[in-house]
Amino acid sequence: MMLALAGGVGGAKLAHGLAMRLPPSDLLVAVNTGDDFVHLGLHVSPDVDTVMYWLAERNDPVRGWGLAGESWNFMRALEEMGGPAWFNLGDRDLATHVERTRLLAQSRSLSEVTRHLCERLGIAHRIAPMSDEPLRTIVHTDEGRLEFQHYFVRRRCEPRVVRLAFETTGEARAPSPAFAAALAAADLEAIVICPSNPFLSIAPILEVHGVRERLAHGTAPVIAVSPIVAGDAIKGPAAKIMQELGLEVSVVGIACHYRDLVDGLIIDVRDAEAQTEIERLGLEVVVVNTIMKTRDDQAALAQTAIDFGRRLAVRAAA
Amino acid sequence: MMLALAGGVGGAKLAHGLAMRLPPSDLLVAVNTGDDFVHLGLHVSPDVDTVMYWLAERNDPVRGWGLAGESWNFMRALEEMGGPAWFNLGDRDLATHVERTRLLAQSRSLSEVTRHLCERLGIAHRIAPMSDEPLRTIVHTDEGRLEFQHYFVRRRCEPRVVRLAFETTGEARAPSPAFAAALAAADLEAIVICPSNPFLSIAPILEVHGVRERLAHGTAPVIAVSPIVAGDAIKGPAAKIMQELGLEVSVVGIACHYRDLVDGLIIDVRDAEAQTEIERLGLEVVVVNTIMKTRDDQAALAQTAIDFGRRLAVRAAA
Repeated sequence: MMLALAGGVGGAKLAHGLAMRLPPSDLLVAVNTGDDFVHLGLHVSPDVDTVMYWLAERNDPVRGWGLAGESWNFMRALEEMGGPAWFNLGDRDLATHVERTRLLAQSRSLSEVTRHLCERLGIAHRIAPMSDEPLRTIVHTDEGRLEFQHYFVRRRCEPRVVRLAFETTGEARAPSPAFAAALAAADLEAIVICPSNPFLSIAPILEVHGVRERLAHGTAPVIAVSPIVAGDAIKGPAAKIMQELGLEVSVVGIACHYRDLVDGLIIDVRDAEAQTEIERLGLEVVVVNTIMKTRDDQAALAQTAIDFGRRLAVRAAA
Repeated sequence: MMLALAGGVGGAKLAHGLAMRLPPSDLLVAVNTGDDFVHLGLHVSPDVDTVMYWLAERNDPVRGWGLAGESWNFMRALEEMGGPAWFNLGDRDLATHVERTRLLAQSRSLSEVTRHLCERLGIAHRIAPMSDEPLRTIVHTDEGRLEFQHYFVRRRCEPRVVRLAFETTGEARAPSPAFAAALAAADLEAIVICPSNPFLSIAPILEVHGVRERLAHGTAPVIAVSPIVAGDAIKGPAAKIMQELGLEVSVVGIACHYRDLVDGLIIDVRDAEAQTEIERLGLEVVVVNTIMKTRDDQAALAQTAIDFGRRLAVRAAA
C-alpha cells in the first residue's frame, strides 16, 4: 500500500498518475486542508476538490483547478449584485461546495463527505482530508497576518512571506481516520510526498499530529518529488516563498528542506548535475522527467515513485 | 401614493405595470414572504425575487419566475452529487440567494437587503418585504402539515388543502418599515391587491400586524384584481385550493372572500355577467381585460387599477 501526500495541482497530477498505476486498495491520497475556508457560507476545500476532479478526470486541463467545461454565470451575477467576487466559483464547482456544506451541517465528518463526493464522481481510489478538524494555514507577511486564501487568491501571493503558522480551533490536530490507518498500516510500502508546494501544501499535512514523527522515524520509506525544477516552480509561488524564507531556490534547497523526513528524492533531468550533492546530504536520488504535461507523464512519474519506494522498502527490510 | 400587495407571477406582472405608470416615489410594492425558506443554507425569497426580476425586466417570460437566459449547470451538478434537486436554482438566480444570505448574516434586515439588491438590479421603484421577521405559510393537507415550498414545489400542490396556518418564531408580525410607513401614510391614495393567489400569496400579507385592520377600516380605498377568470386561475393552484376549501370558484367567490377588506374589484370581461351579483355584495366593479400577456396589458391593467383607486378615493373624500 502507498500513501501519497498531496496539495494542489502538482500533487493532484501525481496522485492521478498513482491512481492509474495502483489498484484502489493500494493507494490512499491524504490531502492538505490547510487551504480550506468558509466563503459565502460555503465550506470550500480547494485541494481536496483539485485532487477529486483530477482523479475523476473532470479537471480543467488548462487552469488545473476546477472542472472542465465550467461556466461562470453565478460569479458574474454575484459580481453584479455587489457580492465578493475575488474567489472564483464555477457554476458546477459550486454544487460541490453546497453539497459538502449541507452534509457537514448534518454532522458528517469531512472524511465522510469526501468519500460521498468521490463516490458520486465515480472515483474508485481513496482520497482523505489530512484531518477532519480545522487546521488553517495562516501566512504572516510584510503586510501582516493573512488567512490563506486572502494571501493566495485575493492578494495573488504578492505579499512577502515572513513565516507560516497553522491554527486550530482546539488542541486537536488528529489525522483523519483513513490517514491515521494508513500511517499505522503494517503493509505501508512507501509514502510519497507529491510535488506540491512544500510550504503551503505539504507543511500543513506535516503539522497533523504524529505525521512528522511517522515520516522521520517510521519503517516505510518516504520519497519526495521535487516541486522545483531548474530553479523554479512548475506552477505557483513555491520558488518565490523559498527565496523570501532565505532558502536556496533549487532541488538542493528542496533536499535540505525535506532531508530529515525523506529517504529519497526524485529530481528532474534538468537538475541531474545536483544528484551528487543531494546524495551527499544522505538522500537517495532518482533522475527522471518530472514535468507532467500529459496523462502518460503522470503515469510514468507515478511508476518511478512506486518503483523507487519499493526499492527503498526492500532495502530497509533487508 | 399607491400601495400594491403582491405575491408571485400575477402580482409581479401587475406590479410591473404599476411601475410603468407611476413614478418611483408614488409606488410601494409590499411582497409576500410567507414562501421564504432556507434551502441549502440559503435564504430564498421566491416572491420578492419574482417581483424584483419583473421590475428589473429580467424575468424569464415563459416560466414567469427566475431570470431570463438562465443556465442550470449548478442544479445538474448538485443532482449528480446526490444533493436535493427538487427546488430549482438557476446559476444566476443563485447569486441573489447567496448575496441575500451573506448580507442577512451581517445582521442587515430583509428590507435593507431587498433595497440593496433592487439598487444593483437598477430598479427605481420601491419593493419591500411584507415583514422583516419570519412569518411562514404552513399548508395543512390531507397528507398532513407541509411547509410551503414542500407543498408548492416538492409536492406540486397535489395534496388537498385543509387549512392554511402562518407561523412566526416569536409573537411579532411587524410590517417592514416601508410597508408600515405606506400603511400609515397620509397621502396613501389606494391599496391594490394584485391578482396573486389569495390564499398562498395575499393571506400571509394580511396576517402581518395591523394590515387587515388597515385595509378594512382605513381611509384609503382598497381594490383587488380578481385572480380568477372564467372559473379558473390564470396560473397556479388558486382555483384548486378554493374548491378544496369549499369556496365557489368564480369571481363571485373572490368577491365573497375579499368583501370585508376591499371596496372595489376588477374583473375580466369574460366574467362581465357577474358584475351585478358582485355589486349586490357591496363592491364597486370595473370590467376590463385582466389577462396580462404583454407589457401593454400590464400597463393597461395597472392604469385601470390606478384610475379605479383614485375614483374611489375621491368619492371617499367627498
